[in-house]
Amino acid sequence: MTLSFTIHATAGNARTGILATQHGDIRTPAFMPVGTAATVKAMHPEAVAATGADILLGNTYHLMLRPTAERVARLGGLHQFMNWQKPILTDSGGFQVMSLAGLRKITEQAVTFQSHIDGSTHVLSPERSMEIQHLLGSTITMVLDECTPFPATEDVARASMEMSMRWAARSKDAFVKRPGYGLFGIVQGSVYEPLRLRSAQALSEIGFDGYAIGGLAVGEGQAEMFRVLDFTVPATPAEKPRYLMGVGKPADILGAVERGVDMFDCVIPTRSGRNARAYTSMGEINLRNARHADDPRPLDAATNSPINRYSRAYLHHLFKADEMLGPMLLTQHNLHYYQELMAGIRAAIANGTFAAHADSLRNGWKQGDFAPL
Amino acid sequence: MTLSFTIHATAGNARTGILATQHGDIRTPAFMPVGTAATVKAMHPEAVAATGADILLGNTYHLMLRPTAERVARLGGLHQFMNWQKPILTDSGGFQVMSLAGLRKITEQAVTFQSHIDGSTHVLSPERSMEIQHLLGSTITMVLDECTPFPATEDVARASMEMSMRWAARSKDAFVKRPGYGLFGIVQGSVYEPLRLRSAQALSEIGFDGYAIGGLAVGEGQAEMFRVLDFTVPATPAEKPRYLMGVGKPADILGAVERGVDMFDCVIPTRSGRNARAYTSMGEINLRNARHADDPRPLDAATNSPINRYSRAYLHHLFKADEMLGPMLLTQHNLHYYQELMAGIRAAIANGTFAAHADSLRNGWKQGDFAPL
Repeated sequence: MTLSFTIHATAGNARTGILATQHGDIRTPAFMPVGTAATVKAMHPEAVAATGADILLGNTYHLMLRPTAERVARLGGLHQFMNWQKPILTDSGGFQVMSLAGLRKITEQAVTFQSHIDGSTHVLSPERSMEIQHLLGSTITMVLDECTPFPATEDVARASMEMSMRWAARSKDAFVKRPGYGLFGIVQGSVYEPLRLRSAQALSEIGFDGYAIGGLAVGEGQAEMFRVLDFTVPATPAEKPRYLMGVGKPADILGAVERGVDMFDCVIPTRSGRNARAYTSMGEINLRNARHADDPRPLDAATNSPINRYSRAYLHHLFKADEMLGPMLLTQHNLHYYQELMAGIRAAIANGTFAAHADSLRNGWKQGDFAPL
Repeated sequence: MTLSFTIHATAGNARTGILATQHGDIRTPAFMPVGTAATVKAMHPEAVAATGADILLGNTYHLMLRPTAERVARLGGLHQFMNWQKPILTDSGGFQVMSLAGLRKITEQAVTFQSHIDGSTHVLSPERSMEIQHLLGSTITMVLDECTPFPATEDVARASMEMSMRWAARSKDAFVKRPGYGLFGIVQGSVYEPLRLRSAQALSEIGFDGYAIGGLAVGEGQAEMFRVLDFTVPATPAEKPRYLMGVGKPADILGAVERGVDMFDCVIPTRSGRNARAYTSMGEINLRNARHADDPRPLDAATNSPINRYSRAYLHHLFKADEMLGPMLLTQHNLHYYQELMAGIRAAIANGTFAAHADSLRNGWKQGDFAPL
């Protein structure tokens, strides 16, 4: 094992600590902005760092198709290619193969699929996924798993999970260990407790630098997701970082931290930002709403948002006029809000005020936006 | 007169100096990035300032329709609205009324037109244009003129120019003088020397803080534009700043500076940047070209481009993947290149090396891009 994880404080099941890597420390609980195609959409990389992000996520599926892993490797690896020197986690490509690619065929050996860009045929096996992520130079590599459809019967979920566990072992065998670089396993098993426990056990026996929980945030709803976390998280090794993939909204993240999760990624802050939706201490706010047209107030004065020098009226105008600066500013705001959320959570866990802090966050979101002028 | 213009050095007809305003000094020759709808497309305002721009241009036509001048005024004026504290020049709205608006009717009194956004009817007179630009808080206001079509017969051009001169007098009467704010007249007359001379004379008699040259860069070609400048520029008062509207490419700007022009605006660096076209010391470069796909070199190492830490391969990838960061970075580069061009021109005029510097610039553009690897 080649990553070092230190837990500095706990509050119930919640923990705060540091995951040390070749490319720097990741303060946990951590939120990873998504940089699908070697760019966090609408953001300069230095602006991503300025929001407080310690790590970002790249998508193996997109990068293997364009510009290709081999090209990125020739150009010095993903860090150099995109000018991001902090840690990068890459997913395995499995999720996007299922959600984006054309005709797919899955066998025990590998998944064969057609590119959504040009229809060309590609093969992704655990071994090839490890090779791609190595070519990219990922700080944290994810095992290739099959993303179990939702809903799935227990029999379907079991067969899928069991193949993913065999793929996890093959991924481990193929992964090239390097100091400061790590490999995470992914717990599957849909919503079924016995399957999740068996998956967590199987992964623990193989041994990974961290344990991701996959197959959630796929339509099951927050209550069901929390129910699954309640039995899944304790089944993973407590001394290793836990990563809930593809989650989520601020309330999802807070609830998962309370259940012992350390790492998150999600397109919500970036995608919503491009669509005029802001996440704030007062909940979600849609800047396209006409109520903002004459409002001179900043978006969220309770936070240190880097766009608080702009009025809501200006942000509203930018979206009405389809100006790129609207998505640019609101993406920046949302990523900053998410990082401020994580920083507040980490501080509260560290100083023993996490329960009160969580109440305060939820009260703010529930209270909603202030009244129009 | 309420703006102070000081010429520090000359080289032939070229001059360098300072136009002092309420919002700060403008170093001339100056290039003004275009911020049509209260934003320079794809740029944070602080990034625009970081390119070296002393002033930007806002479009009265767009702003009067959305968000409206009255709303901008309620929100503290255009500077505060868009977070740009340096000088702003606004055009009069006349040019866009002719190029963008729907059904138009021009009378001696005013132009009536339909919004290209929602078809609503609006009236723009010299007095209303002054009022709108006052509401916006423009540092430099432009008189309302009629943009003479090109080509135009001498009779058509004369009638149009003469109405524009009457509108210039009405604009001057309606303009509210304030220290550090100014009003520029606009010379018209198409390609006809007698008309241009008469127009310049008429404006001089009215008296303005600066003299713009309108009705060029409308399809007449660079040689014809230079021919018109050769007799038009000397007809304007030498002690006032001269502004060539809507120009242009780097070679157009250089040739116009040699003919005594002090100020420029153009959408080329921003629009081209969004379309993968870069302006460099080696001429124009299209980043969509496949020759860049594997090229690890920076775009233009001979300049201090803020995007030189990215490879051409990365820029190519961003445009192929339709990522917003491509337009963001290339707009930033182009605006920086234009400002570096202007800074070099100013320095060369000041230290007596302008002719050699102009040769050097033209040789670089003519030589073109370096060979593929």
